[in-house]
Amino acid sequence: MSPSLQKIDIHSAHADGQNSDDVLTIAHALAQRLAKTAVERDQVGGHAATERQWIRSSGLLTLSVPQEFGGQGASWETINQVVRILAQADSSLAHVFGFHHLQVAGLQLYGNAQQQRRLLTATVEKQIFWGNSLNPLDKRTVATRLEDGYVLNGVKSFSSGSVGSDWLTISAWDETTQSPLIAVTSSNQPGIQIQSDWDAFGQKQTDSGNVHFNQVFLPDDLVLQAPGKTPTPQATVRSQMAQLIMTNLYLGIGLGAFEAARTYTKQQAKPWFASGVEQSSDDPFIQRRYAELWLLLRPAIALADSAGRELNQVLQQGALITKEDRGNLAISVVEAKCLAHRAGIEASTQLFDLTGARSTSSKFGFDRFWRNVRVHTLHDPIDYKLRDLGRYLLDARFPDPTPYS
Amino acid sequence: MSPSLQKIDIHSAHADGQNSDDVLTIAHALAQRLAKTAVERDQVGGHAATERQWIRSSGLLTLSVPQEFGGQGASWETINQVVRILAQADSSLAHVFGFHHLQVAGLQLYGNAQQQRRLLTATVEKQIFWGNSLNPLDKRTVATRLEDGYVLNGVKSFSSGSVGSDWLTISAWDETTQSPLIAVTSSNQPGIQIQSDWDAFGQKQTDSGNVHFNQVFLPDDLVLQAPGKTPTPQATVRSQMAQLIMTNLYLGIGLGAFEAARTYTKQQAKPWFASGVEQSSDDPFIQRRYAELWLLLRPAIALADSAGRELNQVLQQGALITKEDRGNLAISVVEAKCLAHRAGIEASTQLFDLTGARSTSSKFGFDRFWRNVRVHTLHDPIDYKLRDLGRYLLDARFPDPTPYS
Amino acid sequence: MSPSLQKIDIHSAHADGQNSDDVLTIAHALAQRLAKTAVERDQVGGHAATERQWIRSSGLLTLSVPQEFGGQGASWETINQVVRILAQADSSLAHVFGFHHLQVAGLQLYGNAQQQRRLLTATVEKQIFWGNSLNPLDKRTVATRLEDGYVLNGVKSFSSGSVGSDWLTISAWDETTQSPLIAVTSSNQPGIQIQSDWDAFGQKQTDSGNVHFNQVFLPDDLVLQAPGKTPTPQATVRSQMAQLIMTNLYLGIGLGAFEAARTYTKQQAKPWFASGVEQSSDDPFIQRRYAELWLLLRPAIALADSAGRELNQVLQQGALITKEDRGNLAISVVEAKCLAHRAGIEASTQLFDLTGARSTSSKFGFDRFWRNVRVHTLHDPIDYKLRDLGRYLLDARFPDPTPYS
Amino acid sequence: MSPSLQKIDIHSAHADGQNSDDVLTIAHALAQRLAKTAVERDQVGGHAATERQWIRSSGLLTLSVPQEFGGQGASWETINQVVRILAQADSSLAHVFGFHHLQVAGLQLYGNAQQQRRLLTATVEKQIFWGNSLNPLDKRTVATRLEDGYVLNGVKSFSSGSVGSDWLTISAWDETTQSPLIAVTSSNQPGIQIQSDWDAFGQKQTDSGNVHFNQVFLPDDLVLQAPGKTPTPQATVRSQMAQLIMTNLYLGIGLGAFEAARTYTKQQAKPWFASGVEQSSDDPFIQRRYAELWLLLRPAIALADSAGRELNQVLQQGALITKEDRGNLAISVVEAKCLAHRAGIEASTQLFDLTGARSTSSKFGFDRFWRNVRVHTLHDPIDYKLRDLGRYLLDARFPDPTPYS
Repeated sequence: MSPSLQKIDIHSAHADGQNSDDVLTIAHALAQRLAKTAVERDQVGGHAATERQWIRSSGLLTLSVPQEFGGQGASWETINQVVRILAQADSSLAHVFGFHHLQVAGLQLYGNAQQQRRLLTATVEKQIFWGNSLNPLDKRTVATRLEDGYVLNGVKSFSSGSVGSDWLTISAWDETTQSPLIAVTSSNQPGIQIQSDWDAFGQKQTDSGNVHFNQVFLPDDLVLQAPGKTPTPQATVRSQMAQLIMTNLYLGIGLGAFEAARTYTKQQAKPWFASGVEQSSDDPFIQRRYAELWLLLRPAIALADSAGRELNQVLQQGALITKEDRGNLAISVVEAKCLAHRAGIEASTQLFDLTGARSTSSKFGFDRFWRNVRVHTLHDPIDYKLRDLGRYLLDARFPDPTPYS
Repeated sequence: MSPSLQKIDIHSAHADGQNSDDVLTIAHALAQRLAKTAVERDQVGGHAATERQWIRSSGLLTLSVPQEFGGQGASWETINQVVRILAQADSSLAHVFGFHHLQVAGLQLYGNAQQQRRLLTATVEKQIFWGNSLNPLDKRTVATRLEDGYVLNGVKSFSSGSVGSDWLTISAWDETTQSPLIAVTSSNQPGIQIQSDWDAFGQKQTDSGNVHFNQVFLPDDLVLQAPGKTPTPQATVRSQMAQLIMTNLYLGIGLGAFEAARTYTKQQAKPWFASGVEQSSDDPFIQRRYAELWLLLRPAIALADSAGRELNQVLQQGALITKEDRGNLAISVVEAKCLAHRAGIEASTQLFDLTGARSTSSKFGFDRFWRNVRVHTLHDPIDYKLRDLGRYLLDARFPDPTPYS
Repeated sequence: MSPSLQKIDIHSAHADGQNSDDVLTIAHALAQRLAKTAVERDQVGGHAATERQWIRSSGLLTLSVPQEFGGQGASWETINQVVRILAQADSSLAHVFGFHHLQVAGLQLYGNAQQQRRLLTATVEKQIFWGNSLNPLDKRTVATRLEDGYVLNGVKSFSSGSVGSDWLTISAWDETTQSPLIAVTSSNQPGIQIQSDWDAFGQKQTDSGNVHFNQVFLPDDLVLQAPGKTPTPQATVRSQMAQLIMTNLYLGIGLGAFEAARTYTKQQAKPWFASGVEQSSDDPFIQRRYAELWLLLRPAIALADSAGRELNQVLQQGALITKEDRGNLAISVVEAKCLAHRAGIEASTQLFDLTGARSTSSKFGFDRFWRNVRVHTLHDPIDYKLRDLGRYLLDARFPDPTPYS
Repeated sequence: MSPSLQKIDIHSAHADGQNSDDVLTIAHALAQRLAKTAVERDQVGGHAATERQWIRSSGLLTLSVPQEFGGQGASWETINQVVRILAQADSSLAHVFGFHHLQVAGLQLYGNAQQQRRLLTATVEKQIFWGNSLNPLDKRTVATRLEDGYVLNGVKSFSSGSVGSDWLTISAWDETTQSPLIAVTSSNQPGIQIQSDWDAFGQKQTDSGNVHFNQVFLPDDLVLQAPGKTPTPQATVRSQMAQLIMTNLYLGIGLGAFEAARTYTKQQAKPWFASGVEQSSDDPFIQRRYAELWLLLRPAIALADSAGRELNQVLQQGALITKEDRGNLAISVVEAKCLAHRAGIEASTQLFDLTGARSTSSKFGFDRFWRNVRVHTLHDPIDYKLRDLGRYLLDARFPDPTPYS
């Protein structure tokens, strides 16, 4: 590991109290295990059942569950750092992992006390792996009111982590109120069919299938937010969590590319014949390129960590979270995400200028960094992140709370 | 096709005399044919025997052969424009095509009158497809002197277009003089084995195999340049030709990416929900991104075409080509290649910011642009191109003639 | 002069026929003369009466006047090349020079046969220096209809070259038709007062004053375009001429900065103590920086020259110029201007990274390049140039003909 | 003040304990006072005697003096934040202010206990304003050994804050040991002549004169480091302090430019006629530009603050500072300085793209941001900062301790 990266890891670990060291040790071990087959699995794609089981066995699925429900009550700084560590090795499974915790957090942001107790306890006891099928802007899944719940019909695409999940967070459109409901459901509920048809050229093992709902019964006690209700500032923090998980995914990919390049430069690269140096790492142009890349990654990490701390502080306000808290957090996340987006794209492209022609052999699989970060950074357009930031800088206007901002 | 691209095509065609229109019509038709299976073949990789036969049947293999030997005597502007047109559809086969003509040109730069007559006539009559196995810096293939020729042993990697070729240009190291010889040989000569083991993540169908030489006899009359001879300025123009073919390959890929994005934006893209516009093409950020990309491609095309014209003029001097002619040309090519390199990389990465998340589906195969240009731009490091340019700007020092500069 | 720049000068000169060599010789001599006091005059600002007289004496004011009226009938390629040469030494006077020719061209685009004969002949005979006071979007100068002409009242700002001019092109707002008229007037006409109050931090000697009109009589035969008339495509080519003059001004400034840096590096710069090289020009980072800067300037020059050739061709159509001709030209100019804008800004900022701390001494006056190009590139926002280009690329929509596009 | 900037100010203040709020209030008041004449004084240049007196009267000169000697014992985070606040208004005086504290810190890093007590106490009691005349690489000032001290002869250029100073830190070359000594001297010592001949186009009032030494007697008890001694890691922290002060100067200038642009956009700018918006701040391109600029400034601030905290921690080790402490700090400072350098340059250039042509009037003085940051960022070349960082990233090699690294 490069000295700078070590420093960052150590720093972040110490910032977060006594237990995070153990968590990071586990995370690093899990990352190493994933790394061994990451290139191969990237080529094949599909569902990584075995590796998801490794994640489950690592105990890291309970990180975000509060200690009162048997979980580890880790801070979001720690969780995001684990995301970043895993993403250096395997950004698909890091995504599945991060989005599991997003669902767990969603329960805490939207659910009532009873729902939290019941579902979070179950998450620990049954080692539930959560998937995402929530997009309030997508109106194709419709909820029809019954006496004691709803019946769901329709489809939801881009459902990350749905394939192989135990439970799902979902949204559905209520025609009566012209608004969405938000709920959870077992993935094995009759009428639910999860189609493994994700075919992007990157993030291949994110299990981002289409979820089909065919006369699925949704009892009232699984509804986290009924239709017609305006989400509280607390509830809308969820999209910021999602954005920050992505930020750390991009950074993990960028750091993975940086480390892969560095190892290659040190161990395999030959200096260019016209350079006059003995080793590639003595080439002034190569040295400078490493510096330039690091100057994209380093500040993005600093702002991502800082946004993570702010998220922790905001979450501690619970139901008292204000629009201002939420808005300020959203701006911090925008800043970090834009930098991480660019750092990820540049690191994964420029790594080859550091390593040269022979490093394009498929056996190294170095192109997966670009493919993964390129696909993932398209989740929502950076142009509108920048517009939101610009509006805030000029008019102190916070981003509108949406699933993307 | 975008209006700007049309203008460029028309302009370039008219610049080059009466016959180039027909050639470009054939090239466009061939490109369309290649495009139909390009995504699929990119996934599979390997040797494109059928498609190489299409190229052969198109008649375009004789473009660079002088009319006195039965060829078409096309200018290098036209040849490079064909490379660019083909590369928009299929940059692997465009590479194979371009490097065929590089070998044909090499015969004219290095060969004596008899060799030229015999081999160029044969190229037309037998529709020979030439491959490249020349790299004077690689000393692993050794030539041992016999009475009437040499015997060759060793290996040569990165031999573009070697798999499936009829004839090869080769270099071999002569221990006695500590210098290379340059020669041609039938690919079917006993002792030659061409191994199809190119496994890069891009430019998959360039047939860039390893060529193994096992006691291969090389008669004197196939030696274009004997060991111990300093190449003339005329001979060293060959590396500039190679560099300019690559330049046009990068531009073809960049233009292919630009056109793919544009078609998608116009036909399939949905505007972002927060944009307030009806069509993606009305989004001011999208408009601006197209402009920015075009401002990378457009000047690179202008300089590549200009360098192509300069190459034509230089070649007309024949044996009278001076170091200054060669040096000035090399600088023009450096300028064009650096711009094309960057335009290709950026266009193939940023195209997705223009088209959005759904365009990452494997069915579109849009990632191939990045993979192809990323692999190909590593042929030789851009850092040393820039150094050569800087030295010239400061001290009027021309790049040292090498296989890469 | 750097070798690359020499090559460009020679190339451009030869492209433009037999007489341009002489013109360029005169231009270079004039530039050298201006250069001697440029730093000093930049500090002081104000009106450069003496130097304007040098321009007049050089004979270059008749370049754009057709030969039939006693002028030199030079191409716009030549005129713009002179602008570029002068701007390397003194971008204020280059601006005054370029805008003189813009007015002369305006007569040819807007004026009737009689007006052209009379005014263009006078331009040659009386060695008239024209200034600009035209901006159809500015409605503060109002024209009131009299029997045989108009009476003008109001003010017009940003009137480049107005101070010290002999004649002016003007626009004025006609309330009746709610449209502008375009006309010419002697600068000495009673009621005209030209206020020398331009106080920008750059382009200080452009004589860009406020022109005040107080009951100024404008006879009908000086009206080039009456109110209520829609300008022809031919007439609106004027704004493209203006934009292309600016493009060449930016490039002249950028080239001036580049040459100043190069001379300093070669003659005065010391290598950095930690560089290990003997001369600054052997520093790999310095070499690379020169290359990068050149790669901004070189393509901008290529596109500016190409747009200049296109302008010539368009002008030859005269009254037959179509919207398409005008639109295509506008796009070519947008491309060149955006590149020139950026090349100018970067060259004038980065020159100091090439030359180091000691080069900031006021005695060199090297900051004037940045101040001049920074002020001038704000004429109209580059963002809307890019938007226009993006719209064209996506929808083949030409820029709306305005004074700025 | 923009909301983001407010947040940063508040955050940094709170991070640094109870008293820093008061200090920052004083700093803001002083900055406001300096701002009123900053544009005018920038035009005139020269020595700002009155304004230096304001700084003295503010009490901020004792910030860096430990409390045991009567000072305020402020952290370097606070001191650097004051530098940044002052630099937003007046980067020349901010430089003089920051370099005063650099000299005070130097006493603590180099001086023995007696020297510290005597000189630091005097600094408080006599309100001494320190200047810099130290550059161990410059051998033009020579020290000749006497019995009880040295006699100094020669000159030292670029002596920031020397004009008008009370005391100076100096270096002088000892021929015997071929090494420098480091010492302090009263600026009024007979034989010292401080020449006010700084004539750069920016940072005009930094009092960076030439100091001439003519038979100046230097008693032993003013020698902080005798010739022939290798500086300790503690002593060499001084160059990192200097680099971090510069970092915060660049950021102050960048923030000043950003705030100037924002105020102008909100209060004076008119939307572009073709934009279709009512206010400039509603223009999507303007919004995006603000975001992009902020994404240069924000991360640089984050890393500068982080490096400031690391500096504090390192200083607390006192004589126990190791090479590793010093090396790690140097890397953190490199990272921050490179980002600040670029943020400063870009903010001061791009501010005009935010504000438009009318904002170039000399009455606003907005060009001073660019002139100031352009001059100051040339202190030492960023290329070698990047090289140092690259070497560290590749080989864990710390920058060599020099006056510049």
